[in-house]
Amino acid sequence: MTPDAPIDLAAFREVLADLPGPDAAALAGAEARNGQLTKPPGALGRLEDLAIWYAGWRGDARPTMQAPQVIVFAGNHGVAARGVSAFPPEVTVQMVANFEAGGAAINQLARAFGARMDVHALQLEEPTADFTQAPAMDVAAFYAALRTGWDAVDPAADLLVVGEMGIGNTTSAAAIGAALFGGAAAEWVGRGTGVDNAALALKTQVVAEGLVLHGDVLGDPLEVLRCLGGRELAAMAAAILRARVLRIPVILDGFICTAAAAVVEKAAEGGLDHCVAGHVSAEGAHRRMLTALGKEPLLSLGLRLGEGSGAALAIGVLKGALACHSGMATFAEAGVSDG
Amino acid sequence: MTPDAPIDLAAFREVLADLPGPDAAALAGAEARNGQLTKPPGALGRLEDLAIWYAGWRGDARPTMQAPQVIVFAGNHGVAARGVSAFPPEVTVQMVANFEAGGAAINQLARAFGARMDVHALQLEEPTADFTQAPAMDVAAFYAALRTGWDAVDPAADLLVVGEMGIGNTTSAAAIGAALFGGAAAEWVGRGTGVDNAALALKTQVVAEGLVLHGDVLGDPLEVLRCLGGRELAAMAAAILRARVLRIPVILDGFICTAAAAVVEKAAEGGLDHCVAGHVSAEGAHRRMLTALGKEPLLSLGLRLGEGSGAALAIGVLKGALACHSGMATFAEAGVSDG
Repeated sequence: MTPDAPIDLAAFREVLADLPGPDAAALAGAEARNGQLTKPPGALGRLEDLAIWYAGWRGDARPTMQAPQVIVFAGNHGVAARGVSAFPPEVTVQMVANFEAGGAAINQLARAFGARMDVHALQLEEPTADFTQAPAMDVAAFYAALRTGWDAVDPAADLLVVGEMGIGNTTSAAAIGAALFGGAAAEWVGRGTGVDNAALALKTQVVAEGLVLHGDVLGDPLEVLRCLGGRELAAMAAAILRARVLRIPVILDGFICTAAAAVVEKAAEGGLDHCVAGHVSAEGAHRRMLTALGKEPLLSLGLRLGEGSGAALAIGVLKGALACHSGMATFAEAGVSDG
Repeated sequence: MTPDAPIDLAAFREVLADLPGPDAAALAGAEARNGQLTKPPGALGRLEDLAIWYAGWRGDARPTMQAPQVIVFAGNHGVAARGVSAFPPEVTVQMVANFEAGGAAINQLARAFGARMDVHALQLEEPTADFTQAPAMDVAAFYAALRTGWDAVDPAADLLVVGEMGIGNTTSAAAIGAALFGGAAAEWVGRGTGVDNAALALKTQVVAEGLVLHGDVLGDPLEVLRCLGGRELAAMAAAILRARVLRIPVILDGFICTAAAAVVEKAAEGGLDHCVAGHVSAEGAHRRMLTALGKEPLLSLGLRLGEGSGAALAIGVLKGALACHSGMATFAEAGVSDG
């Protein structure tokens, strides 16, 4: 428990209703500094925007990044029993052991970019309900998952990446995408870890069934997350929300992370202004979801692993942006003619 | 002088005629290892290809990158006197001082990604000839520039980035692009550091004049480089060639770097197989040139600074790829079911 933690679901809604914005003075200071650096105007492209965005959220016109945090949340999904994944559900717990032993892709990427990494396995022994039969989580389970995410964020972090592991969770993310943004189940479903055509058709059917069963809650983003989500998705959404309250910038990962994040945006317009899209994954509907959120990905390298891997890779881009912004000489300092 | 250095232009042509390939055993070993790592097949997208490519050139199926080298070459161009740039020619020497003092973007990026950085200013007090009047370099000057590039590569480096600074050098790169790949001058000319419409028209005219004057050498890539290039472009081409001989992988930077590299590919098909495109710059013709070379850029972030900045940023992507490839546990090691 941290003192400011929401004590119930209603308190989470109150947090969403009153989100802080970036620091206007730091934004203006960073813009001014950017214009004086020894380069033609705009020549660092999106690195310039990225550094200014980060400066605004950190409240520092010349910021450095010292303490990035990567958190991986893992959960098990009742819908996995329907055969929607290419991997058996026991892989979730096996991969958590791999994360804890330091053997997964996200461990290597977090280390390569100097990030602390934490792993939270959310009651893997108790999968959420199959959302074609019942809400994935009851209110108590949903609140507990949100609190795990909320509490997992280190208030001293100056960047957050949230990743996930959960066999069956692209099915959950597809259902959330369709619920929040509309469109047919088929437009939101993809091959995930690599299902064949038969499993893809089944996955589409499962999503469609979920949308019908929970049709009456589709207008309430938090209810969408409770009924169609999973524990790790709820935790990711809450961690992203906590980061906003703490003014910690976030790099979004792939399809599942973005689906969790989209709940925040739909619940509070502008709720993802402290987030950039780290990459666009090979899961087709990810591009659709990013476009709906108005986010242009930093990287497009065909990743579709989850775990936070694409976002962790994008930490390198942000590092480069901040190194330039805060480390470069100005025209005056370097005695360079500014055109 | 290093013992194996080409003693004249003919010797450079001999090097081009006999380039080493990657290590087949290391390539096969890296492919095999990639298939055993704890991730769904292909889930790391281009990171997988990148790690295998690097493994092949380094002759190590499980490689690490310890000694990346960034070299910035600077040169002055006779065509700058025609008014083709938004900046005055004295900026070249001013920026060299900025590189040496550590204040430029490339200094920050090299440091951020753990690369050694070297700067070579090539006779800035003596600009190349205006290529609309004469060949940019005579044979002696051309050879000297090539040798500077050749000698600048550290044989102990395990990755090379070459960058440049030279007021007027997008004009030179555009002329080289048109000479090597065909098409009208206007298709290869862009705004560089940010010229207005009048200067853009003049730049197009200058390139067209150069192509006419040197029309009889357009079939010989090295002659194209001598007549339309600049000292820093010649040095970059030679450094890329030296890297090939040493089996040091290269990340290509933007339009000017790619124009220099294209000379190698046109002189020896496959001559850039040890190179990946670090990014696609905002200079429009860069995408055209990369497509002609069959290179898909790793990053697309709107950079148009040169200096090696886009390639240096892409070191982070390669670092991530190698960290995953060489650091991840296999399914067997981690006890994870492989689907």
